[in-house]
Amino acid sequence: KGEPVQIVTTSDCDDHTFELNEEALTKILCDDAVKNKKICVLSVAGAFRKGKSFLLDFLLRYLHKNGSAGWLGQDDEPLTGFSWRGGSERETTGIWAWSKLFICEAPCPGGEEVAVMLLDTQGAFDTESTVKDCATVFALSTMISSVQTFNLSQNIQEDDLHHLQLFTEYGRLALEKGEIKEKPFQSLLFLVRDWSYPYEYDYGAEGGSKVLDRKLSTQNAKRHEELQEVRKHIRSCFEQISCFLMPHPGLAVARHKAFDGRLADIDKEFLQNLEDLAPLLLSPENLVVKSINGTHVTCKGLLEYFKAYINIYQSADLPEPKTMLRATSEANNLAAVAQALDHYNTEMDKVCGGEKPYLGPEELDEKHKQILASAMELFEKTPKMGGADFSQSYADGLLKDIEERYDQYTKNNESKNLFNVAR
Amino acid sequence: KGEPVQIVTTSDCDDHTFELNEEALTKILCDDAVKNKKICVLSVAGAFRKGKSFLLDFLLRYLHKNGSAGWLGQDDEPLTGFSWRGGSERETTGIWAWSKLFICEAPCPGGEEVAVMLLDTQGAFDTESTVKDCATVFALSTMISSVQTFNLSQNIQEDDLHHLQLFTEYGRLALEKGEIKEKPFQSLLFLVRDWSYPYEYDYGAEGGSKVLDRKLSTQNAKRHEELQEVRKHIRSCFEQISCFLMPHPGLAVARHKAFDGRLADIDKEFLQNLEDLAPLLLSPENLVVKSINGTHVTCKGLLEYFKAYINIYQSADLPEPKTMLRATSEANNLAAVAQALDHYNTEMDKVCGGEKPYLGPEELDEKHKQILASAMELFEKTPKMGGADFSQSYADGLLKDIEERYDQYTKNNESKNLFNVAR
Ligand SMILES: Nc1nc2c(ncn2[C@@H]2O[C@H](COP(=O)(O)OP(=O)(O)O)[C@@H](O)[C@H]2O)c(=O)[nH]1
Ligand SMILES: Nc1nc2c(ncn2[C@@H]2O[C@H](COP(=O)(O)OP(=O)(O)O)[C@@H](O)[C@H]2O)c(=O)[nH]1
Ligand SMILES: [Mg+2]
Ligand SMILES: [Mg+2]
Repeated sequence: KGEPVQIVTTSDCDDHTFELNEEALTKILCDDAVKNKKICVLSVAGAFRKGKSFLLDFLLRYLHKNGSAGWLGQDDEPLTGFSWRGGSERETTGIWAWSKLFICEAPCPGGEEVAVMLLDTQGAFDTESTVKDCATVFALSTMISSVQTFNLSQNIQEDDLHHLQLFTEYGRLALEKGEIKEKPFQSLLFLVRDWSYPYEYDYGAEGGSKVLDRKLSTQNAKRHEELQEVRKHIRSCFEQISCFLMPHPGLAVARHKAFDGRLADIDKEFLQNLEDLAPLLLSPENLVVKSINGTHVTCKGLLEYFKAYINIYQSADLPEPKTMLRATSEANNLAAVAQALDHYNTEMDKVCGGEKPYLGPEELDEKHKQILASAMELFEKTPKMGGADFSQSYADGLLKDIEERYDQYTKNNESKNLFNVAR
Repeated sequence: KGEPVQIVTTSDCDDHTFELNEEALTKILCDDAVKNKKICVLSVAGAFRKGKSFLLDFLLRYLHKNGSAGWLGQDDEPLTGFSWRGGSERETTGIWAWSKLFICEAPCPGGEEVAVMLLDTQGAFDTESTVKDCATVFALSTMISSVQTFNLSQNIQEDDLHHLQLFTEYGRLALEKGEIKEKPFQSLLFLVRDWSYPYEYDYGAEGGSKVLDRKLSTQNAKRHEELQEVRKHIRSCFEQISCFLMPHPGLAVARHKAFDGRLADIDKEFLQNLEDLAPLLLSPENLVVKSINGTHVTCKGLLEYFKAYINIYQSADLPEPKTMLRATSEANNLAAVAQALDHYNTEMDKVCGGEKPYLGPEELDEKHKQILASAMELFEKTPKMGGADFSQSYADGLLKDIEERYDQYTKNNESKNLFNVAR
């Protein structure tokens, strides 16, 4: 039947690095039964404790039973598979795969068989993960999957879109330039859990599509440029975007400790929508074969991409995703440094630029001190986020840069000294 | 009885600016019955569609009845006050106040009377608001209130803390330097709605306090520096921080269109916890008088602060809160520009710095072209978020800066030309 296997591990303490469990992944992807088959990869990502693993376990049932009638299971059957549970702390870290790939009929007419892999991801935004952790898990799972499910609670909020934008950009960054066709990723499903407004938009794919149109429209010209930009970015990243509205499974599911996933305790409406959702993702005609660079990828091939991608995130070359405040503070301070440095150069050029005559060293030094002071004041006075402590290292760097510039100004000035020239 | 009055208005189209409704606010704060009384301001902020206005309407009932037995109301009484409703789109924009201030016994022994003001805020992260809109509403309401309620759904997530961090920093930025004592703001309550894990931490203030300890601890040395920093920042902003866990009010509240707020349709457990929460915020011994700069503020006094604060946000001086990707892209590009410019200066100094002899103009121009090319390449090659289009304006700016520098290098070089010097 298979079992969940951790294929990407993270360490919380220490250095928050990622490792590929290459051995486990090789076992899954290079099994003789699948290695040369094309692969479809379905991943579920999003905040922690929002029913991602719970959902995947139903998808597993669908795959086990090949979608035949009654796949949802018995009324009193506990739900097993990827580990899910109640409780306020996260359960999954890194990325997990189901150890068994499922062989399905091909989505295309040829009748070729394809292998289906399910990925479960670490919930984002738990209180042990950094922004970089969340971005890496999201980006990696998006790059590897043919269908990424963005699991959301209650609604599509603007901040969800901001995260999606940052995380997909982090993925795009790791793709080699050549790999970026028009759209770097394949299919994205916004899965809204606990949708509470069926009287506005009905549960399921149709209501979802209407909500998506409203929320992700790039046509609304009245929208602020920032809002437009986020939407354009997201649309430019995926070949296909859809949305599905899931009802609340009932309060027994959400808050009973002893709940074991049996159908009897789950709202009927939730189960009905599960019966729509699973085939939408996994029926033969809806499967999406993983393709990179316009070419379909085999199981064996995916292993190589996986290794390459993780390598990129392990190297220190990429810019690091940071908290909103940290990123804003850095931008604010860098801009203030650039402005102050520019001020110093401009004012010093007026005093002792190439066209200006030689100045006595004392006079030059005095001018320098004045301009330095005004440059530092300009830096200090520019409102910046992050506070004084954070600014200090930028102020130190600025001072050092200015001293270096001053050294050159001094030397240039000396070169104009006729006494020296004459010597 | 009073009514909701919009005291800060926003415009969605056009320029997303904020206006103070000074007339309305003056009417509320300078009424003879209250103007010289000290004021307590309770605000509720957080994402849209999460029951903020709904909660405030119960707090209104508490205040109307002075917390006497039965304040919760009749079983079949519709809930009115601040406008709340079902539906997936936002209801409130800007900041609203209840038109009537409530006179209560003072929190301190003197027996002095104080006035209580309730503020309802625009839900953050709806799909028409920019990050700056959300930050401004949150920051303003935090600056004005003595108790800010951060209304969250289901749990305290790391991204909630990131937002809180950015928004409070935006508030701190607008306070004058002199106003910043050790802690710029007074009391913060994390109000977690739909808490689903009573078997781990019980509903109410006690369970909340334990959750808060876990989530906001700065003692856990194993935590990544980023996580520590967020927690330290938040703790440094508020004099007092607490947390309250509210149960789910039942699915009728969440998703029945016809629900009018009557107690009969609300889960008993929710109502029980409301009966704890309201006095925790509003009973005489728990009221917090607004204080700025260590001095208690009167109603009349608050009006002046309100005007001053809104003025600051209307002026263009403050750095703008932006999306995560935008802030990161700016930081990445500014850092890359600074690095490339530094490279240009360093290499040119080696070629034609003050200590170097005069170079023929063609030779200098050739060197410049080489170094310019390597500087631009350095910029291009540095991995940056935001894509090529976004980088272009930084590349243009870099080129312009380099041309300016080159102009100075040329002039400096000319000044070394013995032929010129001799002239
Ligand atoms: N409110 C709600 N809870 C759910 C849903 N699906 C599962 N849960 C519950 O949410 C909790 C976390 O589920 P889990 O699958 O482990 O979440 P994950 O961290 O996202 O993988 C469990 O107590 C589930 O019973 C849903 O659609 N809505
Ligand atoms: N799940 C849930 N829904 C609530 C709660 N309180 C109110 N609601 C519902 O949430 C919806 C939005 O409420 P509202 O107060 O207008 O939200 P606001 O936008 O945050 O002010 C309404 O349908 C309320 O019935 C709660 O504690 N939990
Ligand atoms: Mg999970
Ligand atoms: Mg509201």
